[in-house]
Amino acid sequence: MSKRSDPRLIERVLRGEHAAASRALSLVIDEAPEADALSKAFFPKSGSAQKIGVCGPPGAGKSSLTSRLVAHYRKQKLKIGILAVDPSSPISGGAFLGDRLRIQEHAMDPGVFIRSLANRGMIGGVSYTIFGAMHVLEAWGCDKIIVETVGTGQDEVEIGKVADTIVYVTTPSMGDEIQAMKAGVMEIGDIFVVNKSDLHGSDKALSDLRSAMSLGRTHEAKPWEPPVLGTSALTGKGVDELGKALDDHWTHLKKSEEGRRRLREQHKEELSLYISRRVYRSALDKISDRNLDDLVEHKIDPASLGTKILKK
Amino acid sequence: MSKRSDPRLIERVLRGEHAAASRALSLVIDEAPEADALSKAFFPKSGSAQKIGVCGPPGAGKSSLTSRLVAHYRKQKLKIGILAVDPSSPISGGAFLGDRLRIQEHAMDPGVFIRSLANRGMIGGVSYTIFGAMHVLEAWGCDKIIVETVGTGQDEVEIGKVADTIVYVTTPSMGDEIQAMKAGVMEIGDIFVVNKSDLHGSDKALSDLRSAMSLGRTHEAKPWEPPVLGTSALTGKGVDELGKALDDHWTHLKKSEEGRRRLREQHKEELSLYISRRVYRSALDKISDRNLDDLVEHKIDPASLGTKILKK
Repeated sequence: MSKRSDPRLIERVLRGEHAAASRALSLVIDEAPEADALSKAFFPKSGSAQKIGVCGPPGAGKSSLTSRLVAHYRKQKLKIGILAVDPSSPISGGAFLGDRLRIQEHAMDPGVFIRSLANRGMIGGVSYTIFGAMHVLEAWGCDKIIVETVGTGQDEVEIGKVADTIVYVTTPSMGDEIQAMKAGVMEIGDIFVVNKSDLHGSDKALSDLRSAMSLGRTHEAKPWEPPVLGTSALTGKGVDELGKALDDHWTHLKKSEEGRRRLREQHKEELSLYISRRVYRSALDKISDRNLDDLVEHKIDPASLGTKILKK
Repeated sequence: MSKRSDPRLIERVLRGEHAAASRALSLVIDEAPEADALSKAFFPKSGSAQKIGVCGPPGAGKSSLTSRLVAHYRKQKLKIGILAVDPSSPISGGAFLGDRLRIQEHAMDPGVFIRSLANRGMIGGVSYTIFGAMHVLEAWGCDKIIVETVGTGQDEVEIGKVADTIVYVTTPSMGDEIQAMKAGVMEIGDIFVVNKSDLHGSDKALSDLRSAMSLGRTHEAKPWEPPVLGTSALTGKGVDELGKALDDHWTHLKKSEEGRRRLREQHKEELSLYISRRVYRSALDKISDRNLDDLVEHKIDPASLGTKILKK
């Protein structure tokens, strides 16, 4: 499974070469034999970049907002990585051509790295490799890594196991969405954004969201109170404020124990997924023809057979 | 981890009670303690329904076409299950309200079961539970199970490990998409559909696709030549033909060795995922605080540590 990696490739990534990072990313994402060696080489850089999860329902304008945020960071000469996990994202080739062009503004910028992880068919696969992809981007010198994903907040949102700071994006017209947030996403968002705040109803959406937030608030002051911001990806309004809130949260994480706690959670997830991925692959090899015949003929079910194989 | 399940719940699902199937599905999808027992009880029914994967890029009209297909099957009094894995799908609460209403036509029909598996945040999770969800639907009495997913064909499309018959949906305006198909999806689609064939350019798209298909064709006759069909989810045109092609493919699978081969692949995937999911959970328990500190302090990397833990 493992294979030594080209030491020159590692060196070139660490020197910040775009083409080398691109090659290393492909090797990691494709789970090539040298992937482990690369992750090992790049891992010491982990924790250096702020990993920002941008989530929210399709149509909230996550990609356009991401694009604006990248422009904001580029004015500060920061190096930025974008990983898109959402298949409906323009970054992943989904959605409409206009949006796709907007994000492509940055594709030619040598200080920006864009990669989609969404084209693996949706049924598993992305999970483990996203960590390796982040290590490459950190080694390449990213200051910020933006992960764009979908999150409807109806269930545990797994982006929390990957990112340092979670930005939840919604719009004024998504009233139902905001209702649903009360239940789920509210606990995981570090910053809430009502995007498309140029649209009618944005003031009401903002104040609804703010009062929903304060309802959940206890009397004791928390070390971080998630702000609720209005932005417009169309005009750029509010993007600087979002950038500031992101910086504030990063400072908060570094100053408090929370940053280390989150990093530990991320490493725990990466390690568990690494182990299960290895087991998955070796299980695939160990399953016999006889096992499969037994399943097809309903002589045993997968859970019972799996338990048997695990006991061996 | 495992727990006996309520025998009455199992009985009620097998009798075809909608509410019982709904409860069982939730337990399986949430990986509740009784999930293994339920899968075990329902597994003997596996292989009875035709599992149809409907994939294609966002905007191809997969949900509207699925809705039409359900209406087609309901005229034949067949019981239908729909599982949506695509977060941008109206079935999953994504996309636009109009589309969402269209699929909801069927939500009140006692012969139709609709469930979204897409609200888990995208980063893993769906993989294993989709098999359990299918076993519940087969036990409930489904004749057809439609799985709606995204597939851009740029990478291996994992829907092939889940479905018996794969319908790849595109539209006349997706010229690039059809180009990409030549590389990837072409090998995995069993039926190709140019949807929105009421739009300009559909004849050209159909003939382009047909000639691309015939280019890849060898001289020896294959047991199944994937048909290329034009449909309009708007008017319903071509939906009966699609239904017929699906029936033909199901008959082909049952008559040839191919059906058994695919079922074995599905069981192999389910078994491997079951094993790795179990290992993932027990790994999560076994990782010590010391392990996590070592990772945070970069004393070791996840791949090396994971390998060590696996050796124990």
